[in-house]
Amino acid sequence: MPFSNQPQKGMQDDFPWDMAVHNRVMGTIAGLLRSFHYEEYDAPVLEPLELFAAKSSEELVREQAYVLRDRGDRELVLRPEMTPTLARMVSQISRERPRPYRWYSIPKCFRFERPQKGRLREFRQLNVDLMGDDSVHSDLEMFLLVKGLMASFGLAEAGWRIRWNHRGALNALLGHRGFSADEQKAFYWLIDRVDKIAPEAFGATAAEKLPDAPKRAFLETYLANEDVSVLLAWLREIPETGELCGRLEAFQRLLGSVRLERAVYSPRTVRGLDYYTGLVFEVYAEGESIHRALFGGGRYDKLLDLYSNDPLSGIGFGMGIYIFSLFLEEAGKLPKVEAGDSVLVQPLGGEESAVFALQVAEALRAAGRVAEFSVYSGGVKKVFQKAEARGFTQVALVGDDEVREKAYSLKNLKTGTQEKIPLG
Amino acid sequence: MPFSNQPQKGMQDDFPWDMAVHNRVMGTIAGLLRSFHYEEYDAPVLEPLELFAAKSSEELVREQAYVLRDRGDRELVLRPEMTPTLARMVSQISRERPRPYRWYSIPKCFRFERPQKGRLREFRQLNVDLMGDDSVHSDLEMFLLVKGLMASFGLAEAGWRIRWNHRGALNALLGHRGFSADEQKAFYWLIDRVDKIAPEAFGATAAEKLPDAPKRAFLETYLANEDVSVLLAWLREIPETGELCGRLEAFQRLLGSVRLERAVYSPRTVRGLDYYTGLVFEVYAEGESIHRALFGGGRYDKLLDLYSNDPLSGIGFGMGIYIFSLFLEEAGKLPKVEAGDSVLVQPLGGEESAVFALQVAEALRAAGRVAEFSVYSGGVKKVFQKAEARGFTQVALVGDDEVREKAYSLKNLKTGTQEKIPLG
Repeated sequence: MPFSNQPQKGMQDDFPWDMAVHNRVMGTIAGLLRSFHYEEYDAPVLEPLELFAAKSSEELVREQAYVLRDRGDRELVLRPEMTPTLARMVSQISRERPRPYRWYSIPKCFRFERPQKGRLREFRQLNVDLMGDDSVHSDLEMFLLVKGLMASFGLAEAGWRIRWNHRGALNALLGHRGFSADEQKAFYWLIDRVDKIAPEAFGATAAEKLPDAPKRAFLETYLANEDVSVLLAWLREIPETGELCGRLEAFQRLLGSVRLERAVYSPRTVRGLDYYTGLVFEVYAEGESIHRALFGGGRYDKLLDLYSNDPLSGIGFGMGIYIFSLFLEEAGKLPKVEAGDSVLVQPLGGEESAVFALQVAEALRAAGRVAEFSVYSGGVKKVFQKAEARGFTQVALVGDDEVREKAYSLKNLKTGTQEKIPLG
Repeated sequence: MPFSNQPQKGMQDDFPWDMAVHNRVMGTIAGLLRSFHYEEYDAPVLEPLELFAAKSSEELVREQAYVLRDRGDRELVLRPEMTPTLARMVSQISRERPRPYRWYSIPKCFRFERPQKGRLREFRQLNVDLMGDDSVHSDLEMFLLVKGLMASFGLAEAGWRIRWNHRGALNALLGHRGFSADEQKAFYWLIDRVDKIAPEAFGATAAEKLPDAPKRAFLETYLANEDVSVLLAWLREIPETGELCGRLEAFQRLLGSVRLERAVYSPRTVRGLDYYTGLVFEVYAEGESIHRALFGGGRYDKLLDLYSNDPLSGIGFGMGIYIFSLFLEEAGKLPKVEAGDSVLVQPLGGEESAVFALQVAEALRAAGRVAEFSVYSGGVKKVFQKAEARGFTQVALVGDDEVREKAYSLKNLKTGTQEKIPLG
């Protein structure tokens, strides 16, 4: 066999039995989002490299992007993420269309990564954004979407957790404590890695990245505190943080009012990306044995900065469908797709029975059923075997008697019963 | 503005208002296909170049394909069509899974063509295939799918036509009349271009490509005949075409039995691609002013030849969603997407009304409605204006009275009426 029939490494073929599950997962997600009035968008897979060089993370573009030169000599990238494209699209309509915009998409994205469990080189990524409003209610809506998403798959609240933080609050805190821009960067960098580095090695790394001892001490104090009221107390010491404090307090109260017990303040959640300016959050699977980041997002203020001075504020999150499906599977909540009540319509005689069987199939479809016209030949017993092997539960038999009587004999393969049903 | 906010030439952004229409079109198509028991599949966008070099048309791969070298130094192509991928996938399962396979997909495909009306460089292409059966009933099913597709969009039968021919019959005819392999190729090549070349120039082109005068005369005779019974008479002169003649006669009878008046034999329909071996067909828009090929397909016998000796026979067609949507639009049948009965849930007081409004929104969603939590502030009149501008027909108002009474006031923006509805 000179040709391999396997897909590229890190990519997946979606056979009908796979696709049925993906469609169920994506359909459930889309249904939940639509009920909140989110609308679907889509965009070309190919974008200019320069857009992503300007707007995406350096790692993505330099190390992971699939790049090509088209026949018009333009350097293009297969999008590794959707946000730069979203920015490009929104900039086309943000002057005319009344806000806010609630948009979602489930694009295929592409990253050349080392394939591993939960990571693919081609993957579907849900993108959800609420743009054109910066109120605390929009922050809250993201958490309500997460809660709704989990509930729509029947996932128990004990099985997940939202960890949140606020980049605006952190920036104020660090600025007030004299952190330089480089030291702030180091601070975030260290927090982003605290769970990935062995505790005994973290001290040395911290000393190297953040040489100032009092600031390192604050990092320790900060990380040790998981109480949002302590964070608020620190903030209140700083002049001109009244509005920010009020916002965080209101957010805390709202979380209580809507009973979002699964959302907790977390000093370790800061999100790697530079463009977040407000609330940031990460959703974790938290089963007995599972403890894993599933997806996350946050608020950004400069989505349109490549195109205009419009400081459109938005909040959103991105979620890999594949990693979420693995989580559903581990939790025993991956939708099961049953064969359904499809009917195999089997002609048993010559051309006349075939023509009548075509009518029977058509009538069943008009009544909302799925009807397959059978191309099998042979005896009824053999047909039943084939039908069962393919997951049919019903076979509509059309022989000479049925043609004469303008009826079909519906065999139920589960119960074994058979009844003659007149057509129409 | 240093960055263009437009998509690449020949590609389209799908804003929510575009996507809603695409989804309606694709949903209608998928619904029809599912009722015939077709199942959706999907596959990676990226495939090895060598697969397409071996399996696709030379023009596609050499002149139109988007090619890239990945970071593992593999030469990949963004699929310009789906069939080679379908072959790769089916070869993985054709030994285990009981046949036939009815599969469909609506993948994005990529071709670097000169952009023009009806052609895009990135496009969605419906692929429908019935594989693992070579009966005349499977041939017929393709036409029934076309008929069902047109009917499901409310298109009148007078607005379209299926033109069909049979490559097996043609091959027998040409072989019997002494056409060499090269002459057969020239014969097909000329037919494929007869509608594209000016009639006065066609003679000269024909003389050049097919120098043998009697064969050229047969080409003329063949093209002048639009009666399938004449084709059958020619076939009957040839030894060992009994089965073929029987099949074509049965097919003709079946078309009559199921009243497929819109399917006509056409000598000019041969399809450019080499891999067709039986029935070929093209669907035409035929309005008063429109006369245009929409899509086509045919039967093939060697789908799996790169992977095995299994002579799996199949029949299928490919249809560009964009060109089909243009046809629907011209015929006034492109689905219109109404704003629907979404509700804007508007808190009118402080935090308490916001919290209660969140409950109202949640209750509406639980009842199957689309409910948007409003981030607008200001007076009721201004809110109604904003709601109307965004296409809402209903606003649920939640003020202090409503909080106290545990109710919401539902304003109908069309009729102007307002009623108080208790929650739950």
